[in-house]
Amino acid sequence: MKLVPALQVQAPRRPGRPRDEELEQLVLDAALELIDSEQEITVSKLVELSGVSRAAIYRRWPSMTQLIASALNIGRVVQPAILVDGDLRQNIFESLYGRSLEQAAEMYSESRFRHRIRLVMADRELQRAYWESHVKRRRTPVEDALREAMSRGTLSSDLDVEACFDTLAGAAYYQLVVRGEPIRLPETRARLEAAFDTVWRGMVAS
Amino acid sequence: MKLVPALQVQAPRRPGRPRDEELEQLVLDAALELIDSEQEITVSKLVELSGVSRAAIYRRWPSMTQLIASALNIGRVVQPAILVDGDLRQNIFESLYGRSLEQAAEMYSESRFRHRIRLVMADRELQRAYWESHVKRRRTPVEDALREAMSRGTLSSDLDVEACFDTLAGAAYYQLVVRGEPIRLPETRARLEAAFDTVWRGMVAS
Repeated sequence: MKLVPALQVQAPRRPGRPRDEELEQLVLDAALELIDSEQEITVSKLVELSGVSRAAIYRRWPSMTQLIASALNIGRVVQPAILVDGDLRQNIFESLYGRSLEQAAEMYSESRFRHRIRLVMADRELQRAYWESHVKRRRTPVEDALREAMSRGTLSSDLDVEACFDTLAGAAYYQLVVRGEPIRLPETRARLEAAFDTVWRGMVAS
Repeated sequence: MKLVPALQVQAPRRPGRPRDEELEQLVLDAALELIDSEQEITVSKLVELSGVSRAAIYRRWPSMTQLIASALNIGRVVQPAILVDGDLRQNIFESLYGRSLEQAAEMYSESRFRHRIRLVMADRELQRAYWESHVKRRRTPVEDALREAMSRGTLSSDLDVEACFDTLAGAAYYQLVVRGEPIRLPETRARLEAAFDTVWRGMVAS
């Protein structure tokens, strides 16, 4: 039997270097540049555009899917926790459709949104990775506030919080994905307000 | 000044021929074959695959966008009118998420759905054409039933019917477009039932 010493000796891991975050940003910027110009993302192109070594890229991201999911998330922010005291309805509306959506539209153009949807519809693995590592986290502030309001008796105690979020967010996705209408249009905003109003009535404890 | 007689004489329109519908189906089948195999749709390829002449294709569809929108709609059916007498809640649920969605899943595979979303996200003109000529029509039975129920006092009289539809359909789109979960999964169906329940409570006249 032949020994294969090379495989038995673990390569020593290089200690974390201070510039790791900068390298990460360079690679994600390069990925985003490729996404925005509708080019295929390959490690070679990322090395060329970012100047970061192939080894460093592989060290940071276990798969290209994870890397693209991270890139698609640039410019998206997790909203701060929502105050359950005060006007809960207004606070949740704002978090879902208000300032956050306008801010998102500035940092995350509609064309990038449309491109993200195309990429995830073409690749379910990427879709699930993006969902697990990014979308789920962004849902937390609203979901936490809904649970807190349920326990206080403000909202009905038998709500399915995830389904409520899906419904409220789904109404906004419908505008962009099915109607093809920008969120900023006054008639789109009016529809979202009416949608929120109906769902909210259904959530309030009777 | 030069006369341009050729432009002044209108070419005689050929009378409608009995086989027009067959030709139409041949062209749409060819378009769908190209869509499903992820090839670009060109008139030349359609002529080659369908055997229908270039002139006949141009005569039937004013633009390639209209043609692709028609092809994307194959297998989608407009549901029959919804009975407002009887269990309206159940009838609307069935029309939106029930049999129709299962039937649609058989005739209109999820992979074609995902492909349709990619195409419309890449081309807003196609998205708007598909919305105007197809999606809007499919909404009619549910929207009519909601209006009738509002006028009878079963549902709240101040509902925005379009927003209600967007919300109910949006919850289903969210499963497919954001979560990436097939509608058939038991946990997906449970979420849709919970979503419907909450929205319905918000729509019922209090």
